[in-house]
Amino acid sequence: MKVLIVFAHPEPASFSAALKNTAVSTLTRQGHDVMVSDLYAMSWQPALSEGDFVGERADAHYLDLSREQEHAFEHNAHAAVVRQEQEKLAAADLVLFHFPVWWFSMPAIMKGWVDRVFSRGFAYSTGRKYESGHFKGKRAMICLTTGTASTLYEPSGIDGDLHAVLWPIHNGMLAYTGFTVLPPFAAWMPARVSEEERQCYLADYAERLETLDTTDALFFHPWDDYDQTQRLKPGVKARSGVQWNPLADQTREEAAAQAKAKCQ
Amino acid sequence: MKVLIVFAHPEPASFSAALKNTAVSTLTRQGHDVMVSDLYAMSWQPALSEGDFVGERADAHYLDLSREQEHAFEHNAHAAVVRQEQEKLAAADLVLFHFPVWWFSMPAIMKGWVDRVFSRGFAYSTGRKYESGHFKGKRAMICLTTGTASTLYEPSGIDGDLHAVLWPIHNGMLAYTGFTVLPPFAAWMPARVSEEERQCYLADYAERLETLDTTDALFFHPWDDYDQTQRLKPGVKARSGVQWNPLADQTREEAAAQAKAKCQ
Repeated sequence: MKVLIVFAHPEPASFSAALKNTAVSTLTRQGHDVMVSDLYAMSWQPALSEGDFVGERADAHYLDLSREQEHAFEHNAHAAVVRQEQEKLAAADLVLFHFPVWWFSMPAIMKGWVDRVFSRGFAYSTGRKYESGHFKGKRAMICLTTGTASTLYEPSGIDGDLHAVLWPIHNGMLAYTGFTVLPPFAAWMPARVSEEERQCYLADYAERLETLDTTDALFFHPWDDYDQTQRLKPGVKARSGVQWNPLADQTREEAAAQAKAKCQ
Repeated sequence: MKVLIVFAHPEPASFSAALKNTAVSTLTRQGHDVMVSDLYAMSWQPALSEGDFVGERADAHYLDLSREQEHAFEHNAHAAVVRQEQEKLAAADLVLFHFPVWWFSMPAIMKGWVDRVFSRGFAYSTGRKYESGHFKGKRAMICLTTGTASTLYEPSGIDGDLHAVLWPIHNGMLAYTGFTVLPPFAAWMPARVSEEERQCYLADYAERLETLDTTDALFFHPWDDYDQTQRLKPGVKARSGVQWNPLADQTREEAAAQAKAKCQ
């Protein structure tokens, strides 16, 4: 299969880079075709702006970004750097997002890759979401490093459950656009553990990559579970762990237990 | 008081800009001193990189960003653009984050303002979090616009509860660094409502800004509610709506109801 690794860390000798290198070597060894978008090495410019539109604008006097994205996609008038990334993404069967968690999210350089590459027309359009999303059939997975311990990312932890922290990415960027989302791989504070533990993380990650086909995806409600106001229909029990459906006579605890049973 | 508005939208005639202008005029009229960081107008560069460190590096051969941030802060060796934003932030009693929601989060250009300006040493350091955070005594608030309706941001909505979507920002960036976090102001899909409704949003926002002193802050657990593993202590009932403490004999539903009663 074709794999796209989107990687955001400025230090080539970092543990984040070691995880990325492990992915490249493991997947290549398995015979896959691996592309890497090393955002810092590419000097990726993160800010979505009028610079993304190189042809005639839909409206040269008022910058409506989603309208211009749709227009540029239709007229093949996106900036070359954006088009190149869209071509990689269109070709990929699996997309891996490799990043250190900065401020409970991805680094700005990667957010800017999403802002610019996931353009309207290319990545989403009216009425096409989840299993009817543009990227249906593709899989995606996050590989992250943290500066702190795993306990902080438990449901009672100071950061909140890792799945709650990643909800905007998993649900909003990935499931929304049609990806099948695999559980994240987390290396907890690699800067503070022994070299032996770091090697163990790399081996675990290689094993994860070798067993993707037998790894259960995270659950997100299909488009059909939502009504026309895009709320869960009465009777549909929320199973995401973050959502909650008072119309389904279900407690959050039940929803969380269901989601946990499915995710782990 | 001194107010810093951090604003991220590239179109000066956008409704996001109108909200920002409303904040400037309302707060100025009240006699406050208003600073604006208009990130697109400033051509703010979002990617945190070695370019932030202009003096001698702590380690010129390996880029450990948090170590270099701490070193640069101690030696007054941050890039001038970063130092200028830190000076504005240090002077501010209230910080307003004005942005359109892109992919369930802030635009990359604003995430990059946080990545670079909230540097280690200046914005956080070991053991100083929440009410002992660096920004204790300052207030912060998000003013956002969406491309979709409010129903999508209900607990059963396809995006999940707005407070769950904003958890990484509210808890992770703001409460964590010591800010008192005021409830967000949301203008739902201003691009699709009537001019009358847009004017109504602006009037509502002005009223919100005039009544900040009587607006209850969002609840985040104080540092003392966490044990040394940074998990809620046994017996402390989770009240954030996103967290959950199985050691406190409490369901998520109870936690959500408590949080709702406090937030609204």
